[in-house]
Amino acid sequence: QTDDSNTVIINLKKMNRVRALDRDNMTITVEAGCVLQDLQLYTEKAGFFFPLSLGAEGSCQIGGNLATNAGGISVLRYGNSRDLALGIEAVTASGNVLNELHGLRKNNTGYDLKNLLVGSEGTLGVITAVTLKLFPPESNSEHGFFAVDGVGAAITCLQCLQNHFAGKVSTFELMPNIAMQCLARNSSLRCPIGDHYPWYVWYKIADANPDKPLYEDNLALLKSLIEKGLIINATVSQNETMKQYFKKIRETIVAVQKQEGAVIKLDISVPISAMPKLIEKGHATIENICPGIRPYPFGHVGDGGIHYNLMRPSALSDKEFLDNYKDKLCQAVLDIVDGLGGAFSAEHGIGSQKIQEMKQYKDPVALDLMWRIKHAFDPFNIMNPGKVIPALKKHK
Amino acid sequence: QTDDSNTVIINLKKMNRVRALDRDNMTITVEAGCVLQDLQLYTEKAGFFFPLSLGAEGSCQIGGNLATNAGGISVLRYGNSRDLALGIEAVTASGNVLNELHGLRKNNTGYDLKNLLVGSEGTLGVITAVTLKLFPPESNSEHGFFAVDGVGAAITCLQCLQNHFAGKVSTFELMPNIAMQCLARNSSLRCPIGDHYPWYVWYKIADANPDKPLYEDNLALLKSLIEKGLIINATVSQNETMKQYFKKIRETIVAVQKQEGAVIKLDISVPISAMPKLIEKGHATIENICPGIRPYPFGHVGDGGIHYNLMRPSALSDKEFLDNYKDKLCQAVLDIVDGLGGAFSAEHGIGSQKIQEMKQYKDPVALDLMWRIKHAFDPFNIMNPGKVIPALKKHK
Repeated sequence: QTDDSNTVIINLKKMNRVRALDRDNMTITVEAGCVLQDLQLYTEKAGFFFPLSLGAEGSCQIGGNLATNAGGISVLRYGNSRDLALGIEAVTASGNVLNELHGLRKNNTGYDLKNLLVGSEGTLGVITAVTLKLFPPESNSEHGFFAVDGVGAAITCLQCLQNHFAGKVSTFELMPNIAMQCLARNSSLRCPIGDHYPWYVWYKIADANPDKPLYEDNLALLKSLIEKGLIINATVSQNETMKQYFKKIRETIVAVQKQEGAVIKLDISVPISAMPKLIEKGHATIENICPGIRPYPFGHVGDGGIHYNLMRPSALSDKEFLDNYKDKLCQAVLDIVDGLGGAFSAEHGIGSQKIQEMKQYKDPVALDLMWRIKHAFDPFNIMNPGKVIPALKKHK
Repeated sequence: QTDDSNTVIINLKKMNRVRALDRDNMTITVEAGCVLQDLQLYTEKAGFFFPLSLGAEGSCQIGGNLATNAGGISVLRYGNSRDLALGIEAVTASGNVLNELHGLRKNNTGYDLKNLLVGSEGTLGVITAVTLKLFPPESNSEHGFFAVDGVGAAITCLQCLQNHFAGKVSTFELMPNIAMQCLARNSSLRCPIGDHYPWYVWYKIADANPDKPLYEDNLALLKSLIEKGLIINATVSQNETMKQYFKKIRETIVAVQKQEGAVIKLDISVPISAMPKLIEKGHATIENICPGIRPYPFGHVGDGGIHYNLMRPSALSDKEFLDNYKDKLCQAVLDIVDGLGGAFSAEHGIGSQKIQEMKQYKDPVALDLMWRIKHAFDPFNIMNPGKVIPALKKHK
């Protein structure tokens, strides 16, 4: 990996991707075209940690991560992409360069243009550079993997972890039984604690301070959660290989879904308190619409987001499933999400695919204000037209 | 205090200030008119912690805190007001109610209207309610108070604290020698470690977990910083009274300034790495303009913000000082701030007083986009007219 990151540094420098690294301010300023994984390696080499981490990190670019306010597995501790960016540079529809490229943690000089452009998916301007927060390396980390009976128990465990390891819980990923079964059928990976439990959690606690070993403390907490009857079975990482194995399982349960036929993907969020009800009502409703359907919900449940994916029943063909059920199923699940005060897009954004949901679920006053902003910034609709906003209404 | 907070709960309920407390989601939804201190007590009584804390907390209201994106002494750990608000309800210029009042930590459904309204000082709409993040109580806390030779040493100490107590440093406040002198002359309070050192820091580390006492650990860290030659003298809190005494000192150094004549107040921020240079260049420049001037910089330096206040020389009257020097001094300091990539308003916003600075220092492209937003939201300029934006330019 040393060779890899050396190459990255040479490449990033060659391409002028890194504009500045401010060690005392713990910030880095990079071009939008910087690949996320290159950025991770570059900052690691420099003695820091950049926490944004997601499946596409080997190819996605930081400009796109910000345009879509990407989430990933570290949101629980470090926030979404918007929380990691302090300042941005962007090109507007009129061809001007917006210079809000600062490394300030406090700045109350006018409207928050950074957060307006972040997540606007290129419809208001094109982000060309960004100043990002860096963090101390998570040099001291422990991972755990455990099984629970239900989503409610998983959330209680999260709260216990948060209270015990204040500020140190970096990752908390929920996975259902079906994901472990699917993993066993379609890969060489195996769930480390057996694949017969209803739900699984992989979590990570991490500290910058290497003087305070977390291993014993982590073990003790897991034991107490088992004694309380919250956790059915658990294991902890004994070494780096095992940590990587846990992470690999979480990554692979995404890849193996498509081995067993068509999957409908829903990326939703609810208040964390509503997560058990979402699963309960969701599962009952979809089974009612499409008997034999195999819900495959997983994700970063610690922040209320879940990839509520739906695998086709084994009795149906992909085409039968998608043609006859997709619209009905999405509608039914999103109605439940809406009723629980949730969002129909947690981290994947709108693009052109969720324009219909914007019409249906977004507050009309919010939509009207979005139209006004879009028209004010881009009156000729040249910035990523057709995306995010249902239709460009004319304003005087 | 129990009686106090009981009264608060009855009052808040009577006034329907609290709309909902969601324990599992760790959020509270309140009306904009809720007084900050009432909110602090209410959430404490409910077993949570709401971290926003500032001098005016006894009278300011949460709606105003959000309209101005208030900062305060807990920004280092918990962020500014905007970071504490998940969703808002607001009334727009056309009299519609924007309903973005959700408790979601992940929500990528369109432009970030919450952050646009937060910090817009009522010029785009009036915030009427908010859903706020709550945190576990800081039931286990330790305070320290130490002296250093310079601002650079203070910042190095901050980094050591952050690395050692990852995620647990709640407060880190810098105070100059003159503040302790002024305190001694104008109050009954005394600096706990003597008032002859160049700079002072009051800090707080806190944990939700009462099983892990921080006292010994805090003491050991301070000792190591003394051994490294970073800290000259230090003390730690032995009990709650002492913790309150440290806090009281920090609060009182603000109040006592005006006892010694006119004060020019500058609320600025720079990248943390530029803080030593700001102080060095700032002090030299103002002394050059106005010999005998007494700079009185203090504040939440952990987030790059500083109240760079200027007390008049003893030889000048208030009127002579303000009439002859105020504009020149402000201009000179803000030029330095601008040159260091800083902001002329860190947490106090713009209002009508800093309109001139907006014209002078704000990126013209940013100003143009602000104008466009203002015109799109409030074409008849009825929302807090004359504030934040220099002049309302007409857009087609």
